[in-house]
Amino acid sequence: MAESMKGLHRSHRCTEVTKAMTGEKVTVMGWVQKSRNKGSIIFVDLRDRSGLLQIIFEEGEISSEDFAKAEKLRSEFVVAVEGKVELRSGGVNENIPTGEIEVRAESIRVLSEADTPPFPIEENSKTKEDLRLKYRYLDLRRPDLQKNLIMRSRVATLTRQFLSEEGFLEIETPMLTKSTPEGARDYLVPSRVHPGNFYALPQSPQIFKQLLMCSGYDRYFQIVKCFRDEDLRADRQPEFTQIDMELSFVDVDDVIGVNERLLQRMFKETIGIEVPLPIQRMTYKEAMERFGSDKPDIRFGMELKDVSAVVKDCGFSVFTDAIKNGGSVRGINAEGQAEMPRKKIDALVQFAKDFGAKGLAYLGINADGTFKSSFAKFMTEEELKVLADTMQAKSGDLLFFAADEDDVVFDVLGNLRLELARGLELLKKDEYKFLWVTEFPLLEYSKEEGRYTAKHHPFTMPMEEDLDLLDTHPEKVRAKAYDIVLNGTEIGGGSVRIYQNNVQEKMFEVLGFSKEDAYDRFGFLLNAFKYGVPPHAGLAYGLDRLIMLMAQEDSIRDVIAFPKVKDASCLMTEAPNIVEKKQLDELGIGVVETE
Amino acid sequence: MAESMKGLHRSHRCTEVTKAMTGEKVTVMGWVQKSRNKGSIIFVDLRDRSGLLQIIFEEGEISSEDFAKAEKLRSEFVVAVEGKVELRSGGVNENIPTGEIEVRAESIRVLSEADTPPFPIEENSKTKEDLRLKYRYLDLRRPDLQKNLIMRSRVATLTRQFLSEEGFLEIETPMLTKSTPEGARDYLVPSRVHPGNFYALPQSPQIFKQLLMCSGYDRYFQIVKCFRDEDLRADRQPEFTQIDMELSFVDVDDVIGVNERLLQRMFKETIGIEVPLPIQRMTYKEAMERFGSDKPDIRFGMELKDVSAVVKDCGFSVFTDAIKNGGSVRGINAEGQAEMPRKKIDALVQFAKDFGAKGLAYLGINADGTFKSSFAKFMTEEELKVLADTMQAKSGDLLFFAADEDDVVFDVLGNLRLELARGLELLKKDEYKFLWVTEFPLLEYSKEEGRYTAKHHPFTMPMEEDLDLLDTHPEKVRAKAYDIVLNGTEIGGGSVRIYQNNVQEKMFEVLGFSKEDAYDRFGFLLNAFKYGVPPHAGLAYGLDRLIMLMAQEDSIRDVIAFPKVKDASCLMTEAPNIVEKKQLDELGIGVVETE
Repeated sequence: MAESMKGLHRSHRCTEVTKAMTGEKVTVMGWVQKSRNKGSIIFVDLRDRSGLLQIIFEEGEISSEDFAKAEKLRSEFVVAVEGKVELRSGGVNENIPTGEIEVRAESIRVLSEADTPPFPIEENSKTKEDLRLKYRYLDLRRPDLQKNLIMRSRVATLTRQFLSEEGFLEIETPMLTKSTPEGARDYLVPSRVHPGNFYALPQSPQIFKQLLMCSGYDRYFQIVKCFRDEDLRADRQPEFTQIDMELSFVDVDDVIGVNERLLQRMFKETIGIEVPLPIQRMTYKEAMERFGSDKPDIRFGMELKDVSAVVKDCGFSVFTDAIKNGGSVRGINAEGQAEMPRKKIDALVQFAKDFGAKGLAYLGINADGTFKSSFAKFMTEEELKVLADTMQAKSGDLLFFAADEDDVVFDVLGNLRLELARGLELLKKDEYKFLWVTEFPLLEYSKEEGRYTAKHHPFTMPMEEDLDLLDTHPEKVRAKAYDIVLNGTEIGGGSVRIYQNNVQEKMFEVLGFSKEDAYDRFGFLLNAFKYGVPPHAGLAYGLDRLIMLMAQEDSIRDVIAFPKVKDASCLMTEAPNIVEKKQLDELGIGVVETE
Repeated sequence: MAESMKGLHRSHRCTEVTKAMTGEKVTVMGWVQKSRNKGSIIFVDLRDRSGLLQIIFEEGEISSEDFAKAEKLRSEFVVAVEGKVELRSGGVNENIPTGEIEVRAESIRVLSEADTPPFPIEENSKTKEDLRLKYRYLDLRRPDLQKNLIMRSRVATLTRQFLSEEGFLEIETPMLTKSTPEGARDYLVPSRVHPGNFYALPQSPQIFKQLLMCSGYDRYFQIVKCFRDEDLRADRQPEFTQIDMELSFVDVDDVIGVNERLLQRMFKETIGIEVPLPIQRMTYKEAMERFGSDKPDIRFGMELKDVSAVVKDCGFSVFTDAIKNGGSVRGINAEGQAEMPRKKIDALVQFAKDFGAKGLAYLGINADGTFKSSFAKFMTEEELKVLADTMQAKSGDLLFFAADEDDVVFDVLGNLRLELARGLELLKKDEYKFLWVTEFPLLEYSKEEGRYTAKHHPFTMPMEEDLDLLDTHPEKVRAKAYDIVLNGTEIGGGSVRIYQNNVQEKMFEVLGFSKEDAYDRFGFLLNAFKYGVPPHAGLAYGLDRLIMLMAQEDSIRDVIAFPKVKDASCLMTEAPNIVEKKQLDELGIGVVETE
């Protein structure tokens, strides 16, 4: 039976009890982590959010009724214990902060009994994730998840504190808003008052934050839930959290400046990591050419090299054809890997093919200076040597080459580079390397839709020097957009916004929207722009991913209290579920039966 | 045309420019509030979030090109001005912080031109609210709305800071969750992956925060959006914001303690109001008997008095019948109002009838000690005198009496009391009177549903001393529930929760849920309770209403950036709207045509 805690007040959390308090009386409350019955003595490890504390019950020292209660304690019982702090009679436990002390119980109340949990409450659980998610309320008791959520709360608090100090206002934007069919799929919410009409849950507060700049709020931020109804890949959730911000009267450097200071403070004050400023910057073009990625992981080198000039006249038609067709030949150097077994190389060739390569050429430099290569027979020894030299390869190195259109070459080698690094264990989770990637292309051509689409979003400002290209070579226009990349993961991104009505209209024109279309979708923003709009820019972080990296976890589910799984359902609440017909009737909607 | 601000950096916000900076060069940016062209001199009031600053352009002192720009300035143009701070040549404007100074312009850029706004951007706007809401981005430029949203941001920041210091963790709970048809109507979100299934938007994070307590998080809070699909009354929004909290190992006094300190800090540090602690407490019973309300406005007296004992044998059958039928006769004293014109009294009688009274009896004590009364002919002079004395009435007072079932009497007199106070202008917005109301009834009988429903929610703990009444007199059971009331408005409420499975099951039984029903709806919570649950309690504030009172506004729409109107639509975005058929098809739902 559950006892009341009436008259009792918890005096300390478990690890707030210290050696200096020896002899003092305390009242502690928490969960039984473990109970060891030694006959006339019972040891209990008491657990709360702060950690563990040993309690000792000795027969004769407490009432027989209370001793009987202690005898019946099992894991996860919730108890309140009054007792005196003393130095441990047994050995010191150096693994826990309270390892030198224990509390000698004078009384106990069992506040709640507990069934045996379906899996043990412990760090580094080996339990299958599905079971853990079904019993999330138990899973959340595990110290590693508690550590993550405590860190998450701390990051949010620090962020708010920092941004407030910097003159940002936290302003809430609506959750029930308008569907704008551009970008990802919206979650819809049927309206009861207006049957046949729907709200959409926001994919981001983009338009609202720009309106707030039009309204003179100067600096806005929000830590806010956003929604995208996409098929979930790893690290995606239907609802996710952004640290969202927007600033007026600024340019790229201002946004980067305030965010560098934010990141520095955040990493220093939560996980003790120094972020040296300024953070390195790299244009999109350089990132692609050196790393084959717009979010390079710069914890390691293995950079791409363009060898087109060296091989353009060689006898290997795979190389020469690619160049003739307007593509390139580029390579990376897996240093010291010349001995890589053939099977492993074959697997990498297959890996490259999965990313669209027709093949993957390799060239190993044996210890004796001779070559082993998939294309040796097409090139002279001298050509091979020049190629190896161009790649700055030395004995024992293994070179990989891709030859194709640039896009394919970058994608293949960029991913191959990461795959090799994983194999070589070059990716250390406790090393944090930040990078700004700038000057993204403004547009990308969508073959599917037969038109240009905005790479970032339709409100992104083109670089002044490229404005004239909008009419002639839209694909060459660079944007005032920037991503912040951490260890090869994009943790945030943003842009300077268009604030001139004529540029915005031109942008919609390039995107293939008629003026009517544009007004239909974004009319209130375009109208707002008629009444005086300040230059403004912003940025948004994906908080879940950021915390995942800080916590050195592999899944964002480990940094979200109640996450959803791949089919967008919650295993604990079983949401989504069937609702009563009456509810649908009130909304004026029906479920369409499909065959 | 819009100029670029390239190469310029804002040095100060408008009111950051001070007298002490006379002679210094500054770069300021903002909106033109007003422009006065005096020929060779142009005065411009520049506005930003911080306030106003006067700029002076003098012909000959700046380039003719720039002077020409200044000549063309109109309201709401956005400009950047470089210039020197100087003492005002003209008179001092004592209404603004920068009233002693001005900036003598050396150059100007017009960052954005502006059409004439559909209404003037000024404080205390007389513009119709519908027009203001359609152009919310302009309305939000008005200093009073800016002041409100800045205060709102400050309250949120302070709350987070305070709660963090008190050991609370901010933990996000899901927005896409499970529909539990108890309480208000849910907003539903159709699932695309699971056709025919729906998520619900949360009415509150109630169950999740209790689960977090089960999981050992000890102290949780969140400032979070909640959703209710109800017909909107004044001061209701389909989405609203709660400051939500939950604490483990606590009882009523702990929750009240931490919240009193929160309120004290919040009011002191945002609007400079001292909240003396402890805040007065009153049981529900006392609140009803003294004020006819469970959220008494204690800024004024005019308390209810039970005169049943005095009139139980009088000749006025309206009074005696009410008492015989188990009801009561109670009165309030409108001091000094004996001269109230008959027409006004008649209006109050009608007001009382609107609240369910069959009538409203009055008794005025004239200056000469004689009476004027609606029921004089049914009572002796002596009886009237005793009645007046019981009400502690003196010459010039006006007494009102209601006779009916207690519920009706309380409702009528409670509201009449407020109506009289409004008429007498007793309700001062800058006076803040807090009150805890405690010991609410656990249950109320719903005639509609033919069963008891939870007054607070089904997880509320009964008072220990009333537990036995659950079986025999459920209506008499008091709950460990508490509301915090400010000036007659409930700004927050909460309760100690049931943490014993057997009590929870009993509660569901009293509510008429079968065990299957209960598990179907709240199974994961009931299951969680099997594995060790700490005593816990919580509270939630309605942030919108709280800020409304702090800002001394009459409508919560004036403290929400993008509010919805009564039909739950947004006049600016026109949400909700019609969506593309393709979107509905993907969700497997259709709009049901109704005749």
